[in-house]
Amino acid sequence: MPKTRKNYIKHCINIDVKTPIKDGFRMPAEFERQEATWLGWPSNPGTFRINPAQAVIEKVARIIAKYQKVHIVVQPSTWEYAYELFKDCKNIFVTELNTDDNWLRDIAPTFLTKNEGKNIYLRSIGWKFNGWGNPKEIKHDMDALAALKITNTLAIPFYKKFDFVCEGGSFSVDGQGTLMTTEECLLKHRNPTLTKNQINNILSNYLNLSKIIWLPYGVANDTDTTGHVDNMCVFVGVGKVLLTWPKDCGTSKCLDKEQEKRSLAALRVLENTTDAKGNKLTVYKMPHPPILRYTKDEINTLPFTKGSFVREPNVRLAASHVNLIITNNAIVVPIFNCPTDSEAIKLMSQIFPERKVYGVYAREIVIGGGNIHCMSQQQPYSTTA
Amino acid sequence: MPKTRKNYIKHCINIDVKTPIKDGFRMPAEFERQEATWLGWPSNPGTFRINPAQAVIEKVARIIAKYQKVHIVVQPSTWEYAYELFKDCKNIFVTELNTDDNWLRDIAPTFLTKNEGKNIYLRSIGWKFNGWGNPKEIKHDMDALAALKITNTLAIPFYKKFDFVCEGGSFSVDGQGTLMTTEECLLKHRNPTLTKNQINNILSNYLNLSKIIWLPYGVANDTDTTGHVDNMCVFVGVGKVLLTWPKDCGTSKCLDKEQEKRSLAALRVLENTTDAKGNKLTVYKMPHPPILRYTKDEINTLPFTKGSFVREPNVRLAASHVNLIITNNAIVVPIFNCPTDSEAIKLMSQIFPERKVYGVYAREIVIGGGNIHCMSQQQPYSTTA
Repeated sequence: MPKTRKNYIKHCINIDVKTPIKDGFRMPAEFERQEATWLGWPSNPGTFRINPAQAVIEKVARIIAKYQKVHIVVQPSTWEYAYELFKDCKNIFVTELNTDDNWLRDIAPTFLTKNEGKNIYLRSIGWKFNGWGNPKEIKHDMDALAALKITNTLAIPFYKKFDFVCEGGSFSVDGQGTLMTTEECLLKHRNPTLTKNQINNILSNYLNLSKIIWLPYGVANDTDTTGHVDNMCVFVGVGKVLLTWPKDCGTSKCLDKEQEKRSLAALRVLENTTDAKGNKLTVYKMPHPPILRYTKDEINTLPFTKGSFVREPNVRLAASHVNLIITNNAIVVPIFNCPTDSEAIKLMSQIFPERKVYGVYAREIVIGGGNIHCMSQQQPYSTTA
Repeated sequence: MPKTRKNYIKHCINIDVKTPIKDGFRMPAEFERQEATWLGWPSNPGTFRINPAQAVIEKVARIIAKYQKVHIVVQPSTWEYAYELFKDCKNIFVTELNTDDNWLRDIAPTFLTKNEGKNIYLRSIGWKFNGWGNPKEIKHDMDALAALKITNTLAIPFYKKFDFVCEGGSFSVDGQGTLMTTEECLLKHRNPTLTKNQINNILSNYLNLSKIIWLPYGVANDTDTTGHVDNMCVFVGVGKVLLTWPKDCGTSKCLDKEQEKRSLAALRVLENTTDAKGNKLTVYKMPHPPILRYTKDEINTLPFTKGSFVREPNVRLAASHVNLIITNNAIVVPIFNCPTDSEAIKLMSQIFPERKVYGVYAREIVIGGGNIHCMSQQQPYSTTA
């Protein structure tokens, strides 16, 4: 005992937190090595048809858990049910937490790491969450605390950035200093009092960046998130982005004019920029699914509750294969029982030849207003807190 | 990336859990190196006078957090209050969890470790918790799940031993194969259908033991726990135990006959046994406080609620300095504004010359039916889950 007592000291120091960039922390890319995936468990009846939505997340969880740890965040009242459901799978861990909704991408902390010798340290950031820019309409008091609470259970230092509105789905990083976001979301609908330069500064200081790429829009009719980039275009490698691309985009044959405009505008930006290292980007075009719409049956069985988004029949769904989950050994691609499914899976297998690509039918999550990536948050690999 | 991909594989294996002894896991002693201390946050109005009881735990938490991480487990409704209270202290982490009562020693998991090369792996056990042997009288449904829930937040493998009634306060280990418990508790009041041999086998298989020392009793009038050993006699080193010892014990001058009988009976066992390594035990005699009793004022301000223990004025409190908390660099000793306080602190300073010894006035926790050790659970140091 006495011989190792000095080692304890490092446990005794209250960590002085400045900003991530000053402290040498960065946000790793989703395609870098992970410790675990956090998933939300559908339980808000104002958002989901509970049983079929849970069935989708169960599939996603079981795929990822073949290869790495999965944390499922559930309402206290459903903890026992979820625990029993997953107890056969030793890589799935169920955590009870009071939340309003279940979009972990947007309410879980943004994780950061720092390499120092053989150690990789973990910290996290919490942004201001205000119901995707709808503070009066969307119930979000408990969601706004979720990042802080999850960080506390992990017992890691926390960067509180509660004066800047932002969600995990509003950006994608390459882990090497580059971030992509959309003007539609972060500039127009989240922080209308801030200039682009001010936002650039905040993101750079908190995610350790030197280059921010602003795409004009998210996907067509992504009204809940008003343009989350993780449904439109994401990093799939250093120098590699995946852009959703409707059939015949840029030709007179394209039937999806609404999405075409958005994808073309994004491509224009991507072709004329470089990443933080000064390199051109390779743009992989992910086939955009045909236009999908809410059915009357879906609307009738999705009870509207106060504090949730209002749904109408025949309104276009913000479905995109880009809202996929990348994990250490598996890629989970949302599919919609449509012709683009197999192309989407094929493309991901080409981009990630070493990872196994799985398609999961995810329409039940899409009718909730997001997709499987929105239900997830990656925790990067670390050796120590 | 591809170069380290093989490393990921170790994250992908579902761990096959047999029993701790077969898997090579053991329960480290409290005096071994720790990762963190878990503390319960007084919130059950049937147990505590909330404000002064929280003030005690706040003091304990702030002492321990000078040197190591502290997790405070709180009811969801008090999470924000507790977070605000402790946010100045970066070593204190507040976790929301629904529990019935707040005795973390008895409802948190029992942690186990295994050394393998440079790695130290962490696992845990959950025992059957039935309200300290009072399944019909004491509300305990949520407490019975707390160990499993805490383990899930830590994402470590769990040994479920839900067919054996036991609490963390009912045993003390030396980390080298020896456990102390009492016949009054584990044999008589918890598992009346099991023989001593059967209990020995269960404890040995789950805590990796080769010697179990049975003391006859706990302290005088410890009616809630019916004889928890952690209030009577605990390991303070390999081959060293701390036994509560009333003034003039064993002489005609002793005024505390009730405690004298118990301490003498324990000493008789301790002097005639050895630890797992075959060595005699050194018995440190911790002065037992003078007889303390519930005041009328305390009873009047402790509201009785259904599912909690009933209290009466003038009934003797189960106060003992032995129910102390051992951490990496600090020892926290409960004191009672009585003459034994300074002797207790002095004795602990002699036993642990390298650790700083703090006294905390803990009567508000004692009138709840336990003491500060009962509110705590140590998480041993580990390098990896």
